Amino acid sequence: MAWPASFCAYLATMQLPPLILGSKSPRRQQLLAAAGFRFRVQVQDVEEVWPPHLPLAEIPAYLARLKAEALEPLSQDELVITADTTVILGQQVLNKPTSAEEAIQMLLALSGQCHTVVTGVHLRYRGRQTEFSAHTRVYFRPLELEEITQYVAQSPPLDRAGAYGIQDTIGLRGIRRIEGDYYNVMGLPVCQLVEALQQYR
Amino acid sequence: MAWPASFCAYLATMQLPPLILGSKSPRRQQLLAAAGFRFRVQVQDVEEVWPPHLPLAEIPAYLARLKAEALEPLSQDELVITADTTVILGQQVLNKPTSAEEAIQMLLALSGQCHTVVTGVHLRYRGRQTEFSAHTRVYFRPLELEEITQYVAQSPPLDRAGAYGIQDTIGLRGIRRIEGDYYNVMGLPVCQLVEALQQYR
Repeated sequence: MAWPASFCAYLATMQLPPLILGSKSPRRQQLLAAAGFRFRVQVQDVEEVWPPHLPLAEIPAYLARLKAEALEPLSQDELVITADTTVILGQQVLNKPTSAEEAIQMLLALSGQCHTVVTGVHLRYRGRQTEFSAHTRVYFRPLELEEITQYVAQSPPLDRAGAYGIQDTIGLRGIRRIEGDYYNVMGLPVCQLVEALQQYR
Repeated sequence: MAWPASFCAYLATMQLPPLILGSKSPRRQQLLAAAGFRFRVQVQDVEEVWPPHLPLAEIPAYLARLKAEALEPLSQDELVITADTTVILGQQVLNKPTSAEEAIQMLLALSGQCHTVVTGVHLRYRGRQTEFSAHTRVYFRPLELEEITQYVAQSPPLDRAGAYGIQDTIGLRGIRRIEGDYYNVMGLPVCQLVEALQQYR
């Protein structure tokens, strides 16, 4: 999936400002590189709190904005990209599990159900801002308990919101259908990000 | 994405017959392995012809059946898996391009449009058969000509029906949305295949 420097021939023609990706996520870094972008990573930790009564689906964009605001003083005439991804099942947000047991509980809750992955993305450059949220619906078939416990035992998905990676064994075997951008489920809606970046040429 | 032998602890409990994958496609082999299956690859070439007036969406399953029938005498009490994938744009089938120019023409045709990827899968074991077709709708945003020519110049997609890989740069950057199984677009609808295999335990 990775593309070497030569693909940047095209990207140079995009004539974008230098990019900062404000995310520790190795998957976001991998996706942005695979899409052919050069960037540096800088992260400024923020307290992830949001106004009460904010609809669940608006929380990721709110947090992405907080992260971008915190990074702005540190950017040197660079275009800041931040993102936040949330897994929503019904009226419930599934964060990263804190134990193998919690991971199993989350996967049992997702089994046979449809949930929504929402990524909020924020771009900021010289006082100009762009913000959007990408939604992908994900349909798991009914999973067998043994399938879940083996997946969790194999490599506990403690760094994955909702306790799964769509690119992991359980994603290949268990996800029957999605509606939306696959890469959004991995943490970065690449196509919509490219369209937003085109406005900064 | 690859999982080592230890994941086969679960798969052993599936108690499937030995598997033959009847496909030369490195992506199908990679996906089946990443889903945790052990199998051997054996391919018997067939003449890919189908009855006139067969609806386009039924051609992949027809060809998968032909491939399975050709392999059956060569299997040794093994479960044969075959597949065929087609890219359908309107009333037109897009095969593998035969030149960079044809690849560019195909991508221009897909740009800004929705097309359907259909994979027909055939399973055959001891005279028992299962057959299904998986459909995924794929939505490309309007692509820039320079983006297309750079992609094709970088690594001519001559082994890809429709002249793109969803896992390639052009797929990350250009596909806004899919409806269906992502891995079906890569050539193997893994989740539906697992469900079909469960019937052979």
